[in-house]
Amino acid sequence: MRSALVNWEESCSTSGGLRFLDTILRGVGQVLFQDNPLSGAIFLVAIAWGSFAAVTPQTFIAGIIAVAVATLTAQWLRVDETALRSGLYGYNGVLVGIALATFLAPTPLLWLYVVLGAAVSTVATLGIANAMKLWSVPALTFPFVLTTWILLLATYGFSGLNGAALPSGKLVAAFEPYHASPLNVVELVHGVLLSISQIFLKGSWIAALLLLLGLAVSSMSAAMFAIGGAILAVLTAHLLGAESQLITDGLLGFSPVLTAIALGSVFYQPSVKVAAYAALGTVFTVIAQAALNVALNPLAIPALTAPFVLVLWLFLLPRQCFDASKSDAKGLLPT
Amino acid sequence: MRSALVNWEESCSTSGGLRFLDTILRGVGQVLFQDNPLSGAIFLVAIAWGSFAAVTPQTFIAGIIAVAVATLTAQWLRVDETALRSGLYGYNGVLVGIALATFLAPTPLLWLYVVLGAAVSTVATLGIANAMKLWSVPALTFPFVLTTWILLLATYGFSGLNGAALPSGKLVAAFEPYHASPLNVVELVHGVLLSISQIFLKGSWIAALLLLLGLAVSSMSAAMFAIGGAILAVLTAHLLGAESQLITDGLLGFSPVLTAIALGSVFYQPSVKVAAYAALGTVFTVIAQAALNVALNPLAIPALTAPFVLVLWLFLLPRQCFDASKSDAKGLLPT
Amino acid sequence: MRSALVNWEESCSTSGGLRFLDTILRGVGQVLFQDNPLSGAIFLVAIAWGSFAAVTPQTFIAGIIAVAVATLTAQWLRVDETALRSGLYGYNGVLVGIALATFLAPTPLLWLYVVLGAAVSTVATLGIANAMKLWSVPALTFPFVLTTWILLLATYGFSGLNGAALPSGKLVAAFEPYHASPLNVVELVHGVLLSISQIFLKGSWIAALLLLLGLAVSSMSAAMFAIGGAILAVLTAHLLGAESQLITDGLLGFSPVLTAIALGSVFYQPSVKVAAYAALGTVFTVIAQAALNVALNPLAIPALTAPFVLVLWLFLLPRQCFDASKSDAKGLLPT
Repeated sequence: MRSALVNWEESCSTSGGLRFLDTILRGVGQVLFQDNPLSGAIFLVAIAWGSFAAVTPQTFIAGIIAVAVATLTAQWLRVDETALRSGLYGYNGVLVGIALATFLAPTPLLWLYVVLGAAVSTVATLGIANAMKLWSVPALTFPFVLTTWILLLATYGFSGLNGAALPSGKLVAAFEPYHASPLNVVELVHGVLLSISQIFLKGSWIAALLLLLGLAVSSMSAAMFAIGGAILAVLTAHLLGAESQLITDGLLGFSPVLTAIALGSVFYQPSVKVAAYAALGTVFTVIAQAALNVALNPLAIPALTAPFVLVLWLFLLPRQCFDASKSDAKGLLPT
Repeated sequence: MRSALVNWEESCSTSGGLRFLDTILRGVGQVLFQDNPLSGAIFLVAIAWGSFAAVTPQTFIAGIIAVAVATLTAQWLRVDETALRSGLYGYNGVLVGIALATFLAPTPLLWLYVVLGAAVSTVATLGIANAMKLWSVPALTFPFVLTTWILLLATYGFSGLNGAALPSGKLVAAFEPYHASPLNVVELVHGVLLSISQIFLKGSWIAALLLLLGLAVSSMSAAMFAIGGAILAVLTAHLLGAESQLITDGLLGFSPVLTAIALGSVFYQPSVKVAAYAALGTVFTVIAQAALNVALNPLAIPALTAPFVLVLWLFLLPRQCFDASKSDAKGLLPT
Repeated sequence: MRSALVNWEESCSTSGGLRFLDTILRGVGQVLFQDNPLSGAIFLVAIAWGSFAAVTPQTFIAGIIAVAVATLTAQWLRVDETALRSGLYGYNGVLVGIALATFLAPTPLLWLYVVLGAAVSTVATLGIANAMKLWSVPALTFPFVLTTWILLLATYGFSGLNGAALPSGKLVAAFEPYHASPLNVVELVHGVLLSISQIFLKGSWIAALLLLLGLAVSSMSAAMFAIGGAILAVLTAHLLGAESQLITDGLLGFSPVLTAIALGSVFYQPSVKVAAYAALGTVFTVIAQAALNVALNPLAIPALTAPFVLVLWLFLLPRQCFDASKSDAKGLLPT
């Protein structure tokens, strides 16, 4: 496999088209921190499966268009070439595209919105990465969250764009569980897998297995932390008494999975202390996800991966308490 | 005209009173980025016209009091003399005064509120400018937005201050347009002009023409970008299906106009790339304005120029992608 | 008293247990900026009195557990020893514990929540202190506010945790005072004292007197600014027409008291200018408290000390306008 990647890299260096394809695949891979075109390709298959299985092909198409537009915008703005080729100007774009097509109805203006959102996501990535550089902390998926929140909120003021799966606005109110059955093994496995596939806004266990495969070909440790984080997230949510449906649909687990991968296998050198720290962060991300779901009730928009971003920034800032961070993590900071 | 300004500058250097007047006029001018007493004087006439024509003279008076108090507070705190004389401690004050008198009823406590808000706006300007200096990004009108939001929110807890034109609190709900007629030329022109006058919270086309005149005497390019930005904002809002009344009243256009002037004529060296970048920023500010209007629904306060501030910070941070910024833009950063 | 403290310090240097106790006492003292074990001990008595008098012993117990867990977490993360011993990793923890036990019902999961919240408060303290260091501004109680907000919001999504004294979610609406009697001297004194005791979420004038005693043994100036700030806050709230019950319960005064102590006696060298500046900040904190109370209405969570944090950051950033800050204030910045 390693030699295949070497051959691929050689082909890319001679063809502009292949280079662009490589950049896009790495962009998809970077959603899960993998600067690896094969991971990106497998993730793309997972997205395609999840989209077509749910009969929402527009989410896949919007993702493809958005990652291409985001990358082209970055080229136009003449960003740093190394960061660009690593896909760092693509991962927010692909998520913006998928999210817009997931939450909005496929009207003609949706496609204008996807193109515009993808272009702005690149400006936001540049801006936020620059801003966070002062703390040596990466932008993560905050450019995606910020751009998508603004675009979704604005649809409540535009008749040309309509919500399809947006939550409805409501006041915060005391919780009354309508379904609090004990968690059985089938539900646990379901919740764990969908916590992984929901990273790309998909509720499909086949997509989840493909995502794990895509992680494993690039980093076995990342795949392990993804599974471990998902299990921990599902158990935590169940212990605290969250809605069973939310748990089994993976809607409380996708941000914690990202936290587990990032803290456990990307930004710190593995150790027992780091594993314990990652576990604390993962558990707190479950709580932050529940909190942000509640906080956004009156605004009728989804939390997206904001809980992951918030917790990861908080848990990355105290870096002086750990041994030198992994050197390859620096590549995640656009320069 | 240039020699008149030289004479004026000479008179100011010999008279403390004239110097103070000059500082106040430049403060008003800085709302539209013009460090020019003649622009400030013409803007002041525009504000006066808009205030008296709408039979709300208190908005003009509050603006005058506030810019004076803000400037005196800056003198008391002994801020940098150059920044002070350029009006950089006045533009947030004048906006605080106008906004408080626009949204609140003219009770006796309003005037205490205006004086207090103006004094705090200067502290906020110092603090926020210091904070943003790390990114070489100016405070813009964020001190005005933050101070006014706090003062307006608090009135819901004080019986001594009452809303006069505050929005009422409501949950975010799906958009149902009650008026979606095609935009005719008269409405287009109306929307474009009021998008400019609403920068000072005025709905008057005469005020708008005066503001354009005030811009033109200082920077023809700023006046052109104001008009271009307003046209682009009105067309974007119409294309996306915004409420016609909001468009023609200029309420979706004032932040985009500020974005167009700032990106197109103030902070970057003019070029085709910069013009395209400014257009992207202007279009996205329309969406951000709609988004913030919606997001503030439950809080029953107006978005003010927050959409402009948010988009401009985002679009100024990736400065490495552009040629060296305009040297005279540095003067906008208080030191 | 000074020699007693010297003896105490000697005993601590020979006993790990006493050192830990000393660290915890200083942690409690740091809530009011006092790096002094005797102050901390007296504050603890005040908390105990307020807790048992209100028949909510769990608030005292949760505070003790939380400050211990927060300190142990800091030791595990191997933070800077000097900052640790000064109690800088304890003051957010003790507040998290008291707040959780005040606003939530004492279910079994509450205690898990207290331990988890205390551990996260230490990570948050490290992270936020690192982030704010770029501006030479301390973290203040923001780690407490952020951690507690997230934990409280999440309870609306968990059946295992129930609100006990949480506000109910409502839309922002025009203010209708149901009780606007003139303030008499008894109410004034009551409001002043409870403004002080509410810093630890207690409504007890005996606790308030103990807190003043604890301040006085460490810094007479801090005690004076606490009283002065409380009087100014109560009068301001009354003048603006706030709800009488809120005023006399000290619920609009505790953040302003913190602002008065911090600006007047901790971070700046005392002077007439500083006293006037502290008064402006104190008055504005009353308004910010009312504003945040309103802004959090739809989210059904309390403002905690967020108004103090917001105003203090704003008023600390323009430090260039003042003589060199007090050298001993530097100790408040974890390194």
